[in-house]
Amino acid sequence: MTYCVGLAVDDGLVMLSDSRTNAGMDHISTFRKMTVWERPGERVLTIATSGNLAITQAVISRLNDGLPHGEGGEHVTLMDVRTLREAAQLVGRALRDVYALDGEAIQEHGAEFSVAMLLGGQIKGDEMGLFHVYTAGNFIEATAETPFFQIGETKYGKPILDRVMTYKTSLEDAAKLALISMDSTVRSNISVGLPLDMVMIRRDELKVSRQVQIDERDPYFRDIQKRWSRALNAAFERLPELPWG
Amino acid sequence: MTYCVGLAVDDGLVMLSDSRTNAGMDHISTFRKMTVWERPGERVLTIATSGNLAITQAVISRLNDGLPHGEGGEHVTLMDVRTLREAAQLVGRALRDVYALDGEAIQEHGAEFSVAMLLGGQIKGDEMGLFHVYTAGNFIEATAETPFFQIGETKYGKPILDRVMTYKTSLEDAAKLALISMDSTVRSNISVGLPLDMVMIRRDELKVSRQVQIDERDPYFRDIQKRWSRALNAAFERLPELPWG
Repeated sequence: MTYCVGLAVDDGLVMLSDSRTNAGMDHISTFRKMTVWERPGERVLTIATSGNLAITQAVISRLNDGLPHGEGGEHVTLMDVRTLREAAQLVGRALRDVYALDGEAIQEHGAEFSVAMLLGGQIKGDEMGLFHVYTAGNFIEATAETPFFQIGETKYGKPILDRVMTYKTSLEDAAKLALISMDSTVRSNISVGLPLDMVMIRRDELKVSRQVQIDERDPYFRDIQKRWSRALNAAFERLPELPWG
Repeated sequence: MTYCVGLAVDDGLVMLSDSRTNAGMDHISTFRKMTVWERPGERVLTIATSGNLAITQAVISRLNDGLPHGEGGEHVTLMDVRTLREAAQLVGRALRDVYALDGEAIQEHGAEFSVAMLLGGQIKGDEMGLFHVYTAGNFIEATAETPFFQIGETKYGKPILDRVMTYKTSLEDAAKLALISMDSTVRSNISVGLPLDMVMIRRDELKVSRQVQIDERDPYFRDIQKRWSRALNAAFERLPELPWG
């Protein structure tokens, strides 16, 4: 399984993904699920993926190689689209293209053609945005009312986001929230695992602000894991006694 | 959907269930999912159920009316079995009986024959225990290493249990943990809702120690909901700044 989360706040965008992939319990491996396209000052786009790895890799490959566009038949890549919505449409078209080629064969072999993708970033002249692209190639966009999207194993890490996150959360705090949400998921579900990939993009900077890979030895992640567990235990200790006699 | 949790600690047993039932978004209602059988000083048993309500009600009904037992054909109820393991076997038999009668018809109409049940309690002369009974009528028993079982919408409320709960947690703290785990679930998933039913049974007392129904107006539940949210936000505020420059 997988856990990826994207948080779109007033200051910018945070994307975080795990890297555990499994095809059965005896075939567990590590694959990066985050890809970044960047031309600093002009565009920065990032995609996090969940679901069938053969499908998501085929989609990313098409986004790099380009898809035929218009009458002339020239190829368009994520480096060519003019708005983030066009980028989401291109991701959707890439997905439909993979489905047209591989969908039947995948389903004939009893596997499910199922993926989800988070696309976030900004292109010069356009607003920053965060999209959730579905298997069918259609998509929704995050808003100030619903400023985060999750894909994969989403439930363990949702309560902390529901309780703390808003559109006005700072970019740094959004990054910390993503890490706490990921930590809750990693602890409770063995199919989600380190290393993590995190990308932070500040609004209107049109480049990656910070990009880190976080493994088990990362001192900051270890520190907040420990602090968070201690804080939860301490908060729990302070709850008042049961009233029912 | 549903969320029920059973916590078996050294001091005793806590069972907590929500009461929201839905057959589609336009058919939401309230049903108690917790049933208690008690002969104080001799036995106390409680069952929390999730899944298809017609099936779980049919199972509870059979456990009250009794199932034919042995050559003589006399009926055995949960008030007759001699050990908790026999009680779990009886629940399994009741489930298989309902499956034999209704299984085919349910599946013909496109519904899934799927339930899960938590059975906990103690019978005089036997140890206290907590069982998770599956749709097939088979079951597993909680141990000191794995002292809690969840059924229904289990993921939202798992991280707090994974982080705080052990077999040595006191009975009162186990009850608070169940409530916090439920609160996280109720907040993040609209298919789980109040009122809640909670039963606490102290080891070797052979009776219900406390039984409460908790609705939206319950001052204690409202208080710990608020305190927990505030504590999480405060704990989050105190996390150290990101180190990556």
